[in-house]
Amino acid sequence: MVSPKLVTAAMLAIGDELLSGRTKDRNIGHLADVLYLAGIDLKEVRIVGDEEEAIVEALNALRSRYTYVFTSGGIGPTHDDITADAVARAFGLACVHDPLAMKLLGEMYDRRGIEFNEARQRMARMPEGARHIENKVSTAPGFIIGNVHVMAGVPQVFTAMLETLVPTLAAGSPMLSRAVTSPFGEGDIGTQLAAIQKAHPETSIGSYPRFDGNRFSTEIVIRSREEAPAEAVERDVLAMIAEIAAAKSAK
Amino acid sequence: MVSPKLVTAAMLAIGDELLSGRTKDRNIGHLADVLYLAGIDLKEVRIVGDEEEAIVEALNALRSRYTYVFTSGGIGPTHDDITADAVARAFGLACVHDPLAMKLLGEMYDRRGIEFNEARQRMARMPEGARHIENKVSTAPGFIIGNVHVMAGVPQVFTAMLETLVPTLAAGSPMLSRAVTSPFGEGDIGTQLAAIQKAHPETSIGSYPRFDGNRFSTEIVIRSREEAPAEAVERDVLAMIAEIAAAKSAK
Repeated sequence: MVSPKLVTAAMLAIGDELLSGRTKDRNIGHLADVLYLAGIDLKEVRIVGDEEEAIVEALNALRSRYTYVFTSGGIGPTHDDITADAVARAFGLACVHDPLAMKLLGEMYDRRGIEFNEARQRMARMPEGARHIENKVSTAPGFIIGNVHVMAGVPQVFTAMLETLVPTLAAGSPMLSRAVTSPFGEGDIGTQLAAIQKAHPETSIGSYPRFDGNRFSTEIVIRSREEAPAEAVERDVLAMIAEIAAAKSAK
Repeated sequence: MVSPKLVTAAMLAIGDELLSGRTKDRNIGHLADVLYLAGIDLKEVRIVGDEEEAIVEALNALRSRYTYVFTSGGIGPTHDDITADAVARAFGLACVHDPLAMKLLGEMYDRRGIEFNEARQRMARMPEGARHIENKVSTAPGFIIGNVHVMAGVPQVFTAMLETLVPTLAAGSPMLSRAVTSPFGEGDIGTQLAAIQKAHPETSIGSYPRFDGNRFSTEIVIRSREEAPAEAVERDVLAMIAEIAAAKSAK
């Protein structure tokens, strides 16, 4: 039996607007979906404001701990877009106008007859030695430095950059998941479900209550990187449901 | 001039389902909105899974740094609901079946003719000495220990608990905000806007691009705890817009 390959990730979402409630984040859930399908375990998410110190600290904590870090936000042309500077500082690198990004942006603005001024040139800044992340929506690139992937905050651009990125990531062993709907609420199944989890530590059993306005049910999600343990847990869960149903109908 | 009162906060959202993409968080944005109105600065958000170690570490980092910490998730009746244990451990306290919570839950289940079993009793556990956070939706209480406020993950219950809580929090000086819509994109205004921000460090100027499918505009949001600096920035921003418009029309 080959042991499953674990690939982990963290996300750092950057922007005052996420913390003031002005913007409701949509990138975290999207990244979670995409990584799940790639078999990459998203282990932690942080949201910080547009403050260099906070970005540097969070980034250094996350990049040392997980296989990949993905950031969103703060790579536009205005003074509050400080992600490139903060990432460069976290790595102890100079933040420079990347020649290729300058060329691509310069040509694009030239075609559109728009001045490629100082503000627009900010979008070409990245830590020295970073690689580009292209996107089909806008010309301004994200970038990769070390295990950190810096992307835009605008959801359409974030999504486009992530699409470019995914095929380049080391995929983990995909997580297998099976769902069983229990017609009984968490209070009815909790004790027995805990015993099942204890007997199968190689799986992760999640329990999600539902309420239809009248009665509770529970969706039980069994996650495992191997087929056999997930199957065993599914059998145990079904036996538990049968037992509780029999007890209730005998009342 | 009285110096503005700063009250800060962090949120810790707990749950594997948020990191697997299975559930899209809705509590972060809601908390951000509510705190903003209360003049409390939400400075950081973290999302971690149902792992005691991860919860303890994040909680200890956040509670030492901010006035308030708010958590969501992990206080239900099943084995994967470990928030009460983790919070107790972070504070070095025992996690006990709270007598009042036991009484309230016991009476409620009694009224409904439902057994108050071991799993349901889990919902009454909290660190020794914690105070309840009531909610109008379900009987299971959240709790307060030190500066940490532990709430449910189900959005309806989280919202109800937060409503109970808000009047008890120290309000900060409310943040004043003014918005000016620039008919020009970030690339046009970026350099001058940076100079305005530099001249008014006591304000925070945010810049949010919009694209109507045809041309870019920018919403400029000026935030300050005092009226006068916000007014001064607004004047400077309007002068900037006038100058750019004049330059464009002269072309």
